Amino acid sequence: SQMANSKFEYVKNFETQEKLLPNCWTVVRLDGRAFHRFSDEHRFAKPNDDRALMLMNHCAEALFKEFPGEIVFAIGMSDEYSFVLKRTSNLWSRRKTKIETCFASFFAASFVLHWSKFFGPETPLLYAPMFDCRATCYPSERNIRDYISWRQADCHINNLYNTCFWALIQQGGLSAAAAEEALRGTLSGAKNEMLFTRFGINYNNLSPMHRRGSIYIWRQVEMTETAKSGEPIKRVRKVPTLIHDDVISDVWWTQNHAILEE
Amino acid sequence: SQMANSKFEYVKNFETQEKLLPNCWTVVRLDGRAFHRFSDEHRFAKPNDDRALMLMNHCAEALFKEFPGEIVFAIGMSDEYSFVLKRTSNLWSRRKTKIETCFASFFAASFVLHWSKFFGPETPLLYAPMFDCRATCYPSERNIRDYISWRQADCHINNLYNTCFWALIQQGGLSAAAAEEALRGTLSGAKNEMLFTRFGINYNNLSPMHRRGSIYIWRQVEMTETAKSGEPIKRVRKVPTLIHDDVISDVWWTQNHAILEE
Amino acid sequence: SQMANSKFEYVKNFETQEKLLPNCWTVVRLDGRAFHRFSDEHRFAKPNDDRALMLMNHCAEALFKEFPGEIVFAIGMSDEYSFVLKRTSNLWSRRKTKIETCFASFFAASFVLHWSKFFGPETPLLYAPMFDCRATCYPSERNIRDYISWRQADCHINNLYNTCFWALIQQGGLSAAAAEEALRGTLSGAKNEMLFTRFGINYNNLSPMHRRGSIYIWRQVEMTETAKSGEPIKRVRKVPTLIHDDVISDVWWTQNHAILEE
Amino acid sequence: SQMANSKFEYVKNFETQEKLLPNCWTVVRLDGRAFHRFSDEHRFAKPNDDRALMLMNHCAEALFKEFPGEIVFAIGMSDEYSFVLKRTSNLWSRRKTKIETCFASFFAASFVLHWSKFFGPETPLLYAPMFDCRATCYPSERNIRDYISWRQADCHINNLYNTCFWALIQQGGLSAAAAEEALRGTLSGAKNEMLFTRFGINYNNLSPMHRRGSIYIWRQVEMTETAKSGEPIKRVRKVPTLIHDDVISDVWWTQNHAILEE
Ligand SMILES: Nc1nc2c(ncn2[C@H]2C[C@H](O)[C@@H](COP(=O)(O)OP(=O)(O)OP(=O)(O)O)O2)c(=O)[nH]1
Ligand SMILES: Nc1nc2c(ncn2[C@H]2C[C@H](O)[C@@H](COP(=O)(O)OP(=O)(O)OP(=O)(O)O)O2)c(=O)[nH]1
Ligand SMILES: Nc1nc2c(ncn2[C@H]2C[C@H](O)[C@@H](COP(=O)(O)OP(=O)(O)OP(=O)(O)O)O2)c(=O)[nH]1
Ligand SMILES: Nc1nc2c(ncn2[C@H]2C[C@H](O)[C@@H](COP(=O)(O)OP(=O)(O)OP(=O)(O)O)O2)c(=O)[nH]1
Ligand SMILES: O=P(O)(O)OP(=O)(O)OP(=O)(O)O
Ligand SMILES: O=P(O)(O)OP(=O)(O)OP(=O)(O)O
Ligand SMILES: O=P(O)(O)OP(=O)(O)OP(=O)(O)O
Ligand SMILES: O=P(O)(O)OP(=O)(O)OP(=O)(O)O
Ligand SMILES: [Mg+2]
Ligand SMILES: [Mg+2]
Ligand SMILES: [Mg+2]
Ligand SMILES: [Mg+2]
Ligand SMILES: [Mg+2]
Ligand SMILES: [Mg+2]
Ligand SMILES: [Mg+2]
Ligand SMILES: [Mg+2]
Ligand SMILES: [Mg+2]
Ligand SMILES: [Mg+2]
Ligand SMILES: [Mg+2]
Ligand SMILES: [Mg+2]
Repeated sequence: SQMANSKFEYVKNFETQEKLLPNCWTVVRLDGRAFHRFSDEHRFAKPNDDRALMLMNHCAEALFKEFPGEIVFAIGMSDEYSFVLKRTSNLWSRRKTKIETCFASFFAASFVLHWSKFFGPETPLLYAPMFDCRATCYPSERNIRDYISWRQADCHINNLYNTCFWALIQQGGLSAAAAEEALRGTLSGAKNEMLFTRFGINYNNLSPMHRRGSIYIWRQVEMTETAKSGEPIKRVRKVPTLIHDDVISDVWWTQNHAILEE
Repeated sequence: SQMANSKFEYVKNFETQEKLLPNCWTVVRLDGRAFHRFSDEHRFAKPNDDRALMLMNHCAEALFKEFPGEIVFAIGMSDEYSFVLKRTSNLWSRRKTKIETCFASFFAASFVLHWSKFFGPETPLLYAPMFDCRATCYPSERNIRDYISWRQADCHINNLYNTCFWALIQQGGLSAAAAEEALRGTLSGAKNEMLFTRFGINYNNLSPMHRRGSIYIWRQVEMTETAKSGEPIKRVRKVPTLIHDDVISDVWWTQNHAILEE
Repeated sequence: SQMANSKFEYVKNFETQEKLLPNCWTVVRLDGRAFHRFSDEHRFAKPNDDRALMLMNHCAEALFKEFPGEIVFAIGMSDEYSFVLKRTSNLWSRRKTKIETCFASFFAASFVLHWSKFFGPETPLLYAPMFDCRATCYPSERNIRDYISWRQADCHINNLYNTCFWALIQQGGLSAAAAEEALRGTLSGAKNEMLFTRFGINYNNLSPMHRRGSIYIWRQVEMTETAKSGEPIKRVRKVPTLIHDDVISDVWWTQNHAILEE
Repeated sequence: SQMANSKFEYVKNFETQEKLLPNCWTVVRLDGRAFHRFSDEHRFAKPNDDRALMLMNHCAEALFKEFPGEIVFAIGMSDEYSFVLKRTSNLWSRRKTKIETCFASFFAASFVLHWSKFFGPETPLLYAPMFDCRATCYPSERNIRDYISWRQADCHINNLYNTCFWALIQQGGLSAAAAEEALRGTLSGAKNEMLFTRFGINYNNLSPMHRRGSIYIWRQVEMTETAKSGEPIKRVRKVPTLIHDDVISDVWWTQNHAILEE
């Protein structure tokens, strides 16, 4: 019977195994599948549902902690999250598929596991979510910073649009089609203006999480722990820290350059 | 600001996109990461925990139903499940990574969502599970059948070994090391014999699910549904059907050849 | 110094190594780069230059013989040649790049080496030619036959068009632009008709090499060789054989099915 | 018949198309296949045949000139040559296979075309050579410099060994086996010593081409050309320049850093 098995074992040779190019930063980006429908069915608040965003953050933090020596930065918004692996990471020998599928499955499992902490008993999870996931290599500091800027700029653009769109509908009484029409082709200056003059909203005062997304980095924190002897001792530990900074800015990266040096 | 974004958008070109070779059957195999530890921490019965196996089956059935026109066969055992996509499948234009990560995340999310149905309130889920996942192409009927045989033969080999191992420990009072030693190098005939003479176990009478794994196929079933008028009407529908047949056998495939013809 | 080298050797890990999917026929297709210009500069006859075509065939035969156990079929036309590796080929462990680059370089080197045999002293080779090359897997008999049909049908379509085009110019006295205009949108029936009525050419009587391309297969041939004793002995050997058959037809493949069975 | 062709055209979708990661230096390395035999059959001088090395250089220069805006550096030795494409190269949209096969075929064709210039009428080329070829991405300056150092260190190690080996045979009268035995496990210091004390050879005085390989870079050269008017005019042009410098050294790269900046 071991005989029988070895006769079939040749099929394992049909597997392929892509490796990520060494010495590149790797971004692993997850995105919820068909979350347009998912957010409708679970009655997400519009334009931003803080329960949903905080659940996403919670899952990202869990993944961050699961690979403390590997993930150095994460940024998320809407139904997506991007994780940056350090340049020298050797996680699963840099096997692309292994990284993508383990991250996707862990994130999705966490999403379900922690759902009720954020949505409570009144909003049960109706079905299992799906997240696609892709790992991409970035060879230079400029490239990885541009990736991060791309996601944060996208967050801003979408949030500004969505804020206007729902203000026009919820406060302005427009239909969805009319709101879309009103916004077609407008530049961001005009959108800021519209929010302020028509709805009294100062865009820059809105929640940083909505405008800039959510970012995790490691921060050294002094903690008081209890030794075996019962005495308190101070230890410095690195902990995942949630921030909503402008990470497009050069200044931020000058101050936090160590992130890219690992 | 759209300006700002377009300046960064070039980073999307660093993504790669592998496609599965057309006209091949594709096997998508999931496997629980570190389930040795996971099964210990959740006190799985040994050698087989039916709650765990039935949860795996339930998740597989959910995935099977999620892609009714694409998945034609599935086989699972232990912490793994394999899904066979039909030769002509065009799911996500055959994008390899998209298929792997969506399957992995949906399965993992389902695993958490349905956990308590099988493990009840007394065994809560302690942490989020991870599943790796890989898609592999098989060009010929012989190859895809050999893949399926490989998994079923592996199920049998492992189950026979594990049954002996735990009988020696649980009924024979051996230590794990002694049991391992007793089994080293034995052929399957000797293991069957040992089970029968020392423990009165007829291996062939053990649960088919444990010996052959779990298989899902589509079966036509006549159903009585209720028309709008309130009258009962008979409809033939294909439903995911769980079986534990010997799928290594030629006879089975003669009778079920339509599976490979889709 | 071996020290010095080992310090740098890590760079070899950046190499990737794609393998061709097992149990598929592999087509390795070469195509001359910028042969529009190349054929002009070497004053190729129009529409078909037999010296050029026979040189291509000669190079193909050399490659065919170089890998006698691996290549089972070849078809060429214009500046291109396709080689079919048998399904079970294990040439260079099916390393894709190794196969592509060795075939391309050997073909190009042969092209130069044998050039003067076909073009004579009056037409020297002016510069080194380039050939791109790509290996593609085909999982089924239908697919590999369709690949071959694709190339042969393409040969026919191009040859019919080019024959008309150059008849209109060379015999009809049209300009290139006028000839192109006259042929725009015509079906193949109309082209055949035009050749016959305007130029007295019966397309079907034209050279089979021009209409159907050139095909190499292995044929068993009885040869009389000389034994060490000096006596003649008959041996059956397989030799590369050049034919110009219709290989789209089912009949041909029924008669030559052994090609696909290796 | 166009009908017929379109029916077959689907087979083109089976092709795959790998792209080189953007913003990396790409090394395209060629290596002669079975040049052990090739060098024997063409009676190459041992350990170094200058005709062969100069032919390799000539082919490299031809390739260098063929892609003047793309290749920024080349280094060769023995039967191999490496070409470095600039980081921002968009040659054939960075299609990996296209680059590999065009480089390999052009180099091999050049090798045959120029053979007799270096080997003369007394040493005709006996058969077509083959070169394998692979393109590899290097993300950082450190990596690309280490690649170059790897090849140059390898050249040195092999040359030192071969010089000793053939001195022991040709001057020392040893058999190949005895020479191998005499060198087993010796460090490079011992080899230098042996050359000097037993054979009066100062290794550092040997040909730089043999010790360090051959390198091509672009150098600005002032040229006197003839204008249409017949007058001589001075132009600065970049020309492929053959050097045999130590390119492991930091100093060299400080002086020639512009190579990596393109
Ligand atoms: N109302 C509401 N909707 C949200 C929120 N976050 C995400 N969504 C919804 C809005 C979008 O339709 C969707 C995210 O856009 P995507 O481009 O990822 O589209 P979707 O997931 O539907 O399709 P996909 O499968 O990713 O191609 O999720 C939220 O906080 N509130
Ligand atoms: N007690 C018990 N353990 C099980 C059962 N099903 C699976 N397991 C455990 C036993 C094995 O240690 C493990 C499956 O073997 P694997 O080769 O997949 O190893 P594992 O998941 O630990 O590592 P991996 O991350 O897949 O490389 O799961 C079960 O029904 N009962
Ligand atoms: N006059 C003449 N020209 C030929 C003959 N065989 C091939 N050619 C020329 C005509 C076409 O322009 C060219 C082959 O077409 P391709 O599509 O391969 O184009 P070309 O090689 O120019 O570009 P490419 O680098 O392959 O994209 O070679 C021949 O026998 N006589
Ligand atoms: N006598 C002599 N031999 C040389 C010279 N240059 C190269 N060769 C020979 C010596 C080596 O056997 C061979 C190059 O070593 P490789 O590792 O590339 O081996 P080879 O080409 O035989 O096998 P391969 O197909 O590349 O795996 O070429 C030379 O200048 N003089
Ligand atoms: O589990 P295998 O044997 O298919 O192999 P793998 O998943 O590629 O390796 P591992 O489980 O050790 O990561
Ligand atoms: O499947 P889609 O349409 O979401 O395509 P994608 O490759 O995921 O593209 P994107 O990165 O734009 O979501
Ligand atoms: O020549 P190497 O060592 O780079 O390795 P390879 O070409 O991949 O292997 P081989 O020359 O043995 O085919
Ligand atoms: O480079 P091209 O334009 O010839 O593109 P290709 O991938 O070679 O395409 P084709 O197979 O149509 O020649
Ligand atoms: Mg998407
Ligand atoms: Mg989405
Ligand atoms: Mg999204
Ligand atoms: Mg595994
Ligand atoms: Mg496992
Ligand atoms: Mg397992
Ligand atoms: Mg082409
Ligand atoms: Mg061409
Ligand atoms: Mg062509
Ligand atoms: Mg090699
Ligand atoms: Mg070699
Ligand atoms: Mg070599």
